[in-house]
Amino acid sequence: MTDLREQALHYHAHPTPGKIAIELTKSAETAHDLALAYSPGVAEPVREIADDPDNAYKYTAKGNLVAVISNGTAILGLGNLGPLASKPVMEGKALLFKRFANLDAIDIEVTHRSTEEFIDTVANIADTFGGINLEDIKAPECFVIEKALVERCNVPVFHDDQHGTAIVTAAGMLNALEIQGKNIEDAIIVCMGAGAAAIACMELLIKCGAMREKIYMLDRKGVIHTRRDDLNEYKTLFANNTDMRTLEDVIEGADVFVGVSGPDVLPPEAVALMADKPVIFACSNPDPEIKPELAHAVRDDLIMATGRSDYPNQVNNVLCFPFIFRGALDARAKTINNAMKVAAVNAIREVAKLSVPSEVLAAAGVSHLEFGREYIIPKPMDPRLLPRVAKAVAQAAVESGVARIELPDNYMSEL
Amino acid sequence: MTDLREQALHYHAHPTPGKIAIELTKSAETAHDLALAYSPGVAEPVREIADDPDNAYKYTAKGNLVAVISNGTAILGLGNLGPLASKPVMEGKALLFKRFANLDAIDIEVTHRSTEEFIDTVANIADTFGGINLEDIKAPECFVIEKALVERCNVPVFHDDQHGTAIVTAAGMLNALEIQGKNIEDAIIVCMGAGAAAIACMELLIKCGAMREKIYMLDRKGVIHTRRDDLNEYKTLFANNTDMRTLEDVIEGADVFVGVSGPDVLPPEAVALMADKPVIFACSNPDPEIKPELAHAVRDDLIMATGRSDYPNQVNNVLCFPFIFRGALDARAKTINNAMKVAAVNAIREVAKLSVPSEVLAAAGVSHLEFGREYIIPKPMDPRLLPRVAKAVAQAAVESGVARIELPDNYMSEL
Repeated sequence: MTDLREQALHYHAHPTPGKIAIELTKSAETAHDLALAYSPGVAEPVREIADDPDNAYKYTAKGNLVAVISNGTAILGLGNLGPLASKPVMEGKALLFKRFANLDAIDIEVTHRSTEEFIDTVANIADTFGGINLEDIKAPECFVIEKALVERCNVPVFHDDQHGTAIVTAAGMLNALEIQGKNIEDAIIVCMGAGAAAIACMELLIKCGAMREKIYMLDRKGVIHTRRDDLNEYKTLFANNTDMRTLEDVIEGADVFVGVSGPDVLPPEAVALMADKPVIFACSNPDPEIKPELAHAVRDDLIMATGRSDYPNQVNNVLCFPFIFRGALDARAKTINNAMKVAAVNAIREVAKLSVPSEVLAAAGVSHLEFGREYIIPKPMDPRLLPRVAKAVAQAAVESGVARIELPDNYMSEL
Repeated sequence: MTDLREQALHYHAHPTPGKIAIELTKSAETAHDLALAYSPGVAEPVREIADDPDNAYKYTAKGNLVAVISNGTAILGLGNLGPLASKPVMEGKALLFKRFANLDAIDIEVTHRSTEEFIDTVANIADTFGGINLEDIKAPECFVIEKALVERCNVPVFHDDQHGTAIVTAAGMLNALEIQGKNIEDAIIVCMGAGAAAIACMELLIKCGAMREKIYMLDRKGVIHTRRDDLNEYKTLFANNTDMRTLEDVIEGADVFVGVSGPDVLPPEAVALMADKPVIFACSNPDPEIKPELAHAVRDDLIMATGRSDYPNQVNNVLCFPFIFRGALDARAKTINNAMKVAAVNAIREVAKLSVPSEVLAAAGVSHLEFGREYIIPKPMDPRLLPRVAKAVAQAAVESGVARIELPDNYMSEL
């Protein structure tokens, strides 16, 4: 890690600090340029927007601008280090928005004095942007915050740690189950972890067909069941009417294990107890719930995904968030609804089924990729994600009635 | 104006909406790049900043990043049109920061529900930035807001409508008085207007030597005097113990007229009553308190400045704000104090006394400029403003004890 550490610090410090900057998209050289860009010409778009707020999309950067907002209470796997320490992550997210979807994103780190004041702060600045990506905010506050902001803001609000993770997980899971010859409706699912990402993953799997009563969610105290009296309202939705109490109880005969918890919590003996042709998503990062080599050693009928790029089938949010925002902003969607999330799931699934171009193989450092056990999720560098996911999301926005503009006939067709 | 109107709207709408975007300052092409910029490499600068908040200046864009923040309550001369309508102005300001001082600036438009909540909102997001430029916020709230934010924020907070205007006005005024052979200490000053800019101009002139009791400030009700009982605390500081009540009363024998009010409020007959060798700053924009041709028609010993680019001696905030922020951020100043403001005044004065290079003449569309009645204020395109003003400001920050880092020996010497 020393080498990576030095390289990462050098990357962030040289030749200038950070990773993003502002660039001008119009000429600002001559006095005439400045008379158009600022005084007196700028009064004209001001008046147009005062007449009709939608003109902000015509005359300002708003429509392509995403805020990446955090309070730094759940930074990566590092925990609550405060807003300022989260800044490199949020700038990194902004970099990914630009790199993958040509969206302009700026990070905003918010001092969190109370949940109410955090909500007020974000709601008060929301009109600046075309959309808001919430990031690295700990549960359960993140649920309250996202719900309140979705209601109060005129632009889409999306907590990527919840929904981005859920969308990529669902896409990979549905592909894995298809390969294993199983239906999501019949699958017995064990979910290790009951935080924001875990709950969002299970909710979205239910939207995709999973049965709530076949899901067994575990937190630090074991299985979440209906006789527990220590559950918050979010966990209560997953309380199972069961006598089973431990991972060992529920893993026996399970079709699916989803880990959004911590390293090495799934022992190989537990994997051995799972149903035929199981699917394991061990998403704890950097150390998964079980190392793939250990899992494969006890099962040869397994499909496995992790959060790591050095194993097959990486669950990586970058497969979703740049493109779901691209589609949402292009359709000027009021919100990012379930129809749009499911559309993203299906579009990501489809990209994994396409033949893989050589430049994607080269970027991934592999010689061959074909839809199957070791390739259920597309690679981040796949250039077909942008047009396909964005288009599916934008069309779903239109069809579900949350788009505020029509899409051009050739939308994303040139890519 | 139709032509300008069409050009300005076209400039803002084509080929993409707005004037600013995000650009990446580091490579983000390969998987290795992304492993440094985001997961897992980004954890390293996160830890460094958690250990020492000043490392945010080393590893993120913070140190070069200015927020341009408005609630849209006093947009240009257009009034209270709300935050969203102010966005083209704030993006324009961001453009000017980049164009003139290579600072990265992003606009934030804030919904204003109460002054207290506005202050909380800005304070809560302040750590994101290296400095905060408040803009187009109406008086008297702007005074309360700026004072509270200066106290609460760890970065410089500067209300440009007040202090930028004051600095450029003071620079031009001191040069004008020098040419007229007058001392600021002896000058009788009439200030038409009692808003944020007017009060800031008079306060800074006092810091530069003007005598408070020789200043006559007028609002819509006439002279501000000690027997009025309708004055807010800011106007009260300029209540003059006088029996004079009208502009006609105070203009007789006055050396200086400063207008920060509205069009055509200074009649030529009043100009005729002023002392020998008067100075008139008619800064109402686009229509000054008196048209220069009318004023010159009644006085040939006059020096006159306006806010317009099509007359000599334009009072233009762009002569100050990019450079005062450049110096403040480069010295990592905790605040922008009076010493730094006075240093900016003197540096701007000096630039007007230098011989003018041909490219500046060409940009200004004139064949000759020489320090004198028609050239008391530098031109915005003068490339010597950046190194001279920024350096003077940064040095003043160091000398007045508000800088948090030392300046390199060759600071601004290469420009």
